[in-house]
Amino acid sequence: VATVELISEPLDLEFAEPFRIARGVRTHGYNVLVHLRDGEHEGIGEAAPTVYYGESRATVLAALEVYREQLGDDPGAVRSISERLARTLRHNASARASLDMALWDLLGQRVGLPVHRLLGIDPTGAPTTSFTIGIDEPITMARNAAKAARQFKALKIKVGTEHDDEIIQAIRDVTDLPLYVDANTAWEPKEALRHIERLAQHNVTLIEQPVAAHDLAGLRFVRERSPLPVFADESCVGPHDVARLAGVVDGINIKLMKCGGITPALDMIATARAQGMRIMLGCMGAESSVAITAAAQISPLVDYADLDAALLLKADPFEGVTLTQGKLTLPDAPGLGVRRR
Amino acid sequence: VATVELISEPLDLEFAEPFRIARGVRTHGYNVLVHLRDGEHEGIGEAAPTVYYGESRATVLAALEVYREQLGDDPGAVRSISERLARTLRHNASARASLDMALWDLLGQRVGLPVHRLLGIDPTGAPTTSFTIGIDEPITMARNAAKAARQFKALKIKVGTEHDDEIIQAIRDVTDLPLYVDANTAWEPKEALRHIERLAQHNVTLIEQPVAAHDLAGLRFVRERSPLPVFADESCVGPHDVARLAGVVDGINIKLMKCGGITPALDMIATARAQGMRIMLGCMGAESSVAITAAAQISPLVDYADLDAALLLKADPFEGVTLTQGKLTLPDAPGLGVRRR
Repeated sequence: VATVELISEPLDLEFAEPFRIARGVRTHGYNVLVHLRDGEHEGIGEAAPTVYYGESRATVLAALEVYREQLGDDPGAVRSISERLARTLRHNASARASLDMALWDLLGQRVGLPVHRLLGIDPTGAPTTSFTIGIDEPITMARNAAKAARQFKALKIKVGTEHDDEIIQAIRDVTDLPLYVDANTAWEPKEALRHIERLAQHNVTLIEQPVAAHDLAGLRFVRERSPLPVFADESCVGPHDVARLAGVVDGINIKLMKCGGITPALDMIATARAQGMRIMLGCMGAESSVAITAAAQISPLVDYADLDAALLLKADPFEGVTLTQGKLTLPDAPGLGVRRR
Repeated sequence: VATVELISEPLDLEFAEPFRIARGVRTHGYNVLVHLRDGEHEGIGEAAPTVYYGESRATVLAALEVYREQLGDDPGAVRSISERLARTLRHNASARASLDMALWDLLGQRVGLPVHRLLGIDPTGAPTTSFTIGIDEPITMARNAAKAARQFKALKIKVGTEHDDEIIQAIRDVTDLPLYVDANTAWEPKEALRHIERLAQHNVTLIEQPVAAHDLAGLRFVRERSPLPVFADESCVGPHDVARLAGVVDGINIKLMKCGGITPALDMIATARAQGMRIMLGCMGAESSVAITAAAQISPLVDYADLDAALLLKADPFEGVTLTQGKLTLPDAPGLGVRRR
């Protein structure tokens, strides 16, 4: 009987600059690193809890204690473990994501294949990632956008302020890169439509989560009238949400920390594709290269990547996926291919 | 640049007894075996073409010539290849399935893992398989059912005749095993309901494809009134059909030969789960242990298996998955774990 040893430790991350979205501002991420040891190899994973999804570092550590008892004696059975953990204790998705990453890392190391290779994924198909411009004064956001435009091929713009129109205008004055605009639930449906009509005149690629997370009728209302593709983020947590969103949005934003890791993310991708939806793969505000590299492993399966969190940190303690002019390059090393700097 | 060599050969299969369903009778299967060689290992796959899904041995061989040019130089990128082949030439799913199986076989052999292990699947979760009783005189079907009941834990009963009620009554007189009843598109919706009402009195587990494949409104009509769970088979070919069937049926029957192999089957499983559907994993009438073992690799992910085709043959040239009182035991060997007897 092979068992795995689970060790967790705090991972404090500090943003290079305070990061603001429509719902608030953050300066730090209080994450958790997990290590799974099978006696020969060590898999690593990261939980990036957010209060919005009902998690904190304390709940992650508590959930890990529950999940520890359910890891079983067969760490290679990642799909069974993933389902068993979700059945044992719902929500707590970032805690499960950390274990799911570590299990795939372990399996990849055991057989000497990168995780994307285990999954039959062609790494040359990895997309470019957008870079996120947090909320600030329009002139500051434009300056940040101009700077980012030198390195990236697309920008994600956070809105949901008193001066959203000025923000887009100021950014459009300095760059013609594709823009993904993210309202983070800030608008009412009719207000959203007014904003979207104006955004459409600025060559915006898509609008993300224009209305409240629970308001699927509002999302559908906006989507049916919007000249821009409408994506769900806060409305799309796990696989079952993808099914509920059929016909409601044009695309979804999948995050490992919302759904519980690579395994459920693969399920979400399959379901979204079956429904003809487009797919963005995103991240939380504060994630190190552990979690970002885990997400990057499956990024060749999606249309848009927004995997920039590690770049927003003052110091990233890990290295893994790299960027060349915004394009993700997956590590060749077995497992996740992540190591401490 | 690693390229793979594709070799195909005919595989003639003969049924032990002529096999009849509502649409006709078969005595042989004219299948195709494929071999993919990377210089070190050899992956194997099988196409079981059926005219109902628009394929014959000749079309499989012709499609393989088209697909041969699209295999690319990276045989490990199974997901990309699977999508590329489907885009290059639609339909021809059994030809694609043979290549998809062979690619997973190759990848598994290259890293020394069974395919189910590559996919993170726990083999101890493999289900039991039902055994199929083809259409015949009620007394003969009952005799066959009684014989099968000694070895299996569930039976699939083919109906769609002038005397469907007598068939079920005769079988119920000899066994109380769970019965999956399969009408193979034979009934009109209202006729189906009359049959199903009677079946429900005989402790039948589910009714498969009661009405015509294209008649989704009819399927929904039946499902909304049926006391038994309604499954789609002929109405459910590939991943997009699963999305179209949300709310229309209670479950689906996935077959590698309908959808194009293990890769799209995994996508269908994910989508069906997201929609709360139950899943059966089935096979065509004539499949050797190559194709049956390929399907068995992902069987721990489903609720019902109907993977008995190799048992209906006069002689199965291959061995792979084995059965103990109907329960599937997956091979431990790398790749598909199939070899010639």
